[in-house]
Amino acid sequence: MDILRINLATKECVRQSLCSSEAIIGGRALTSKMLVEEIPAGCDPLGPVNKLIFANGALAAAGVSSAGRLSVGGKSPLTGGAKEANAGGTAADSLAKLGLRALVLEDKAPKGESYIIVLNDEGCFFHSAEEYKGMGNFQLAEALFGKYGKENSLITVGPAGEQGLYAAGIAVTDMYGRPSRMAARGGLGAVMGTKGVKAIVISKKGSYRYPNLKSEEFMSARKKFNAQVANSERVQVLKKYGTASTVMAVQNLGALPTNNFSAGQFEHAEKISGEALYELIQARGGEGRNWEPCMAGCLVQCSNVVPDASGKELVAPLEYETICLLGSNLGIGDLDEIGKLNWLCNDLGVDTIEIGGALGVMAEAGLANFGSYADFESILQEMYRGTLQGRLAGMGAALCGTILGIERVPAVKKQAMSAYDPRGVKGTGITYATTPMGADHTAGLTVFFPVDHHDKTGQVEISRKMQIQRAAYDAMGLCAFLTSATGQTPQVIIDLVNTLYGIDFTVEQWNSLALETIKREIEFNRAAGLGKDTDRIPEYFKREKLPPFDLLWDLEDEELEAVFGC
Amino acid sequence: MDILRINLATKECVRQSLCSSEAIIGGRALTSKMLVEEIPAGCDPLGPVNKLIFANGALAAAGVSSAGRLSVGGKSPLTGGAKEANAGGTAADSLAKLGLRALVLEDKAPKGESYIIVLNDEGCFFHSAEEYKGMGNFQLAEALFGKYGKENSLITVGPAGEQGLYAAGIAVTDMYGRPSRMAARGGLGAVMGTKGVKAIVISKKGSYRYPNLKSEEFMSARKKFNAQVANSERVQVLKKYGTASTVMAVQNLGALPTNNFSAGQFEHAEKISGEALYELIQARGGEGRNWEPCMAGCLVQCSNVVPDASGKELVAPLEYETICLLGSNLGIGDLDEIGKLNWLCNDLGVDTIEIGGALGVMAEAGLANFGSYADFESILQEMYRGTLQGRLAGMGAALCGTILGIERVPAVKKQAMSAYDPRGVKGTGITYATTPMGADHTAGLTVFFPVDHHDKTGQVEISRKMQIQRAAYDAMGLCAFLTSATGQTPQVIIDLVNTLYGIDFTVEQWNSLALETIKREIEFNRAAGLGKDTDRIPEYFKREKLPPFDLLWDLEDEELEAVFGC
Repeated sequence: MDILRINLATKECVRQSLCSSEAIIGGRALTSKMLVEEIPAGCDPLGPVNKLIFANGALAAAGVSSAGRLSVGGKSPLTGGAKEANAGGTAADSLAKLGLRALVLEDKAPKGESYIIVLNDEGCFFHSAEEYKGMGNFQLAEALFGKYGKENSLITVGPAGEQGLYAAGIAVTDMYGRPSRMAARGGLGAVMGTKGVKAIVISKKGSYRYPNLKSEEFMSARKKFNAQVANSERVQVLKKYGTASTVMAVQNLGALPTNNFSAGQFEHAEKISGEALYELIQARGGEGRNWEPCMAGCLVQCSNVVPDASGKELVAPLEYETICLLGSNLGIGDLDEIGKLNWLCNDLGVDTIEIGGALGVMAEAGLANFGSYADFESILQEMYRGTLQGRLAGMGAALCGTILGIERVPAVKKQAMSAYDPRGVKGTGITYATTPMGADHTAGLTVFFPVDHHDKTGQVEISRKMQIQRAAYDAMGLCAFLTSATGQTPQVIIDLVNTLYGIDFTVEQWNSLALETIKREIEFNRAAGLGKDTDRIPEYFKREKLPPFDLLWDLEDEELEAVFGC
Repeated sequence: MDILRINLATKECVRQSLCSSEAIIGGRALTSKMLVEEIPAGCDPLGPVNKLIFANGALAAAGVSSAGRLSVGGKSPLTGGAKEANAGGTAADSLAKLGLRALVLEDKAPKGESYIIVLNDEGCFFHSAEEYKGMGNFQLAEALFGKYGKENSLITVGPAGEQGLYAAGIAVTDMYGRPSRMAARGGLGAVMGTKGVKAIVISKKGSYRYPNLKSEEFMSARKKFNAQVANSERVQVLKKYGTASTVMAVQNLGALPTNNFSAGQFEHAEKISGEALYELIQARGGEGRNWEPCMAGCLVQCSNVVPDASGKELVAPLEYETICLLGSNLGIGDLDEIGKLNWLCNDLGVDTIEIGGALGVMAEAGLANFGSYADFESILQEMYRGTLQGRLAGMGAALCGTILGIERVPAVKKQAMSAYDPRGVKGTGITYATTPMGADHTAGLTVFFPVDHHDKTGQVEISRKMQIQRAAYDAMGLCAFLTSATGQTPQVIIDLVNTLYGIDFTVEQWNSLALETIKREIEFNRAAGLGKDTDRIPEYFKREKLPPFDLLWDLEDEELEAVFGC
């Protein structure tokens, strides 16, 4: 496996080979390793010195269920610190079939220029992106598939990335060609857009195959692994209801972000629940799908396709965090309205969590009314036009709060919180505070642990454990939803790696790699000026009681500092 | 002398006594000492934990020329680091006559409440500010003088401070009651406003007198000092032309910020020069004044009163940095237009440098046209109304650049540069980069040194020397304009201090105090997350040649780090 470095100023492309023991370090472990080793912490995230690193995991394109996540790393314009965001879709597998573990975008295109980068077995090619400038992700994907053919994976940015907005994510196409799998968080789309890359077109027809891919040992390990995934109970729930199954659980905890995190229960929660979504899809039929994979061979199939009243695809997928941030957090209790906002965010190429957070803050400042779809849609439309209001929303919740003078900004390290109020899910609050990523549930979600989530007792340990597990999965390009099936039996994954690469990797080494990755990211943050004081939940969460259960955030600084001891 | 602490949450006021050796530590030395000792570096600058510290110098109210500067300190909302900004006017003397070396505002008024704090020999009193909410500084001053009498000094914030805008300064009334002496930089007005203090009314009739004030030794030292000031040649220039005398000097250097720092010479420079201003005042007569003191007993009298065409006061004073930032930097070559923008800034209570920087960035982003007074006036009017555009301008140049996606932002540590392009005045560029304050000429201006300002040779030493000298003067509440008269003979100042306080302070101790003050501020910055990487001039100054002399910024990181070695 190789690393391909693409210099956007010189258009030089260089391949570097990796040995087997290096090649298994992928995903977040690789992006964060390169981040610390190659990117000066003090650099301008949107300047030429920052890099944008794409890395798949050791099991990409090997027929392993849910092993095709694509990690994207670099210095975050949003947080100013270390960033890795990962997405499903097909690009990770396609890169692996070209023999690539990682792709690195370096330097910056000359001012005003923008490229489509085409990767296939023949090499790496630069095409002008002139005709695609300002195009939304959906129109762009259609145009690129038209030009380059359907047998490609696309990595794209919408108008938000081109404008350098800090909420801009990077879209990856799914099995059906939708550019709606997002490496959403932390503004990496702005890094890609301002480097002058509108899209990367990656052939799905690459000829690289792992030498041991057809070995009996690997195929047997894979069979065992896939069976374990298919038989998991939690996976069945995810398949049927998608992540939306979480709505009522968090509503019952009183931790469902509502009206800019001012309440923990939403009067219309049932109307936007997993059950309601399931029924809606069933009732409308048409192009609707209750479950669907986003990558080849995935047995979890948590995705869905939401049809509109006429049965035509409205948005796909619709996920829990989006339902909450663009729904309850904005006072919107209608799945169609949420779906339309979600589609606009996908097309603009922005993180639905960050935008939901920003819109909530703007509503609190009086620039929109909670519950008014029209108000929020109008702000998203302004984002296409690059107006001041559109740009402000696109810069995320923290900058909205700064400019508008709003104190109630649900963010850590300037990154908006996702759909778990930290006062009601203490362990996830600890993750928000202490992950180097800024508020991010994917860095260590604790809500499915069978404990009292209102009580902080023992939560530091749970958060730490989950953060290390998530970092381990991220290091392998494995979907987080596998953890419910294989989290307790890490050896089944190590067996896959060892039989595929012919090495002797161990569970202990895997865990060490995960912890080392987190510590590297923290080291980068410190060097970038994000001190311990940024590993905190905002003060007002300690003062404002969250109705209806009057919950407060009650973790002391020392408890937070104990999570990683640095 | 005492320190008075005012808690805005509890309305408790506590006086602490200082011994003689403590009492001579005033001004910036005192605000920065308290900053480091009392304010957690990680705190929210607009939250209850930050403090706002006012301190006069050891020679306040002692009949010493130009010794009545008032330092204001706290954590800056603009830079996120240490901040001291000082102003002339009468408040420093009035505090000293109440026996106060410093005044500290602690905690925060209950939400929605705002106070007028009244200080006199009888004590400290809280009055409601309800009827003054949203009032501009001029109307406010008139109302407060009407209510409390003319024999008071006022410290006030305008609408910008109340709104928590990061460009908000703190106004101090001059000898004639104008609220136009500004502790302008770094957003301390936002700290005062959001703490819930609209104004501090300080009696000029306090009964405290220094025990040695009438001693022969002190009076003799004072006579010598004042004579040295009165006879200084540079002081004569400052008196006649004011600071505007600098316009043509910097124009000739090719370092006059023009159209958002995109050029170093302005075609209409002569029309806004010190000579033009002198002639205009002479020709119009009326309320115009070519020189005027801002504090009692000042022999420098660099202030002026600019009359409009009818002879009525337009603005007072009009200073070099304002002429440049609201003039050449915006493409405006008309002293009347600059004067009107200046008056609006004073009334709003914002830093003219920061606002000039912000408006320049907004013009570059297309939100206004260079040269159009109407465009810029309209944005200032929006600031009164608190609209999105008004708030954005009021947040300063750096945030404007962030939100609008403009790279050419002339700022260091998010504080806008003043009227010396660092490419053309290298020493002042070094000061911008390395002073803990963010870009600030007052921290160590080098432009009057008889060296080649385009050549970096020897400039590190000059900047360091000037920064220490300025910190020394700031520590004593002495106006920077004294340095041209007494900079070479520090003993004349030490004699004043020793005879007034009956101690044995030395020049060496004074210099140590100055350096220690700077190092404390740097220490605070580091703890607040402002690392070495923030002690830099923005990258584009190294790439973009400044016409007409094609100047580049060429200082290496190591050279900058050598200034203070930390």
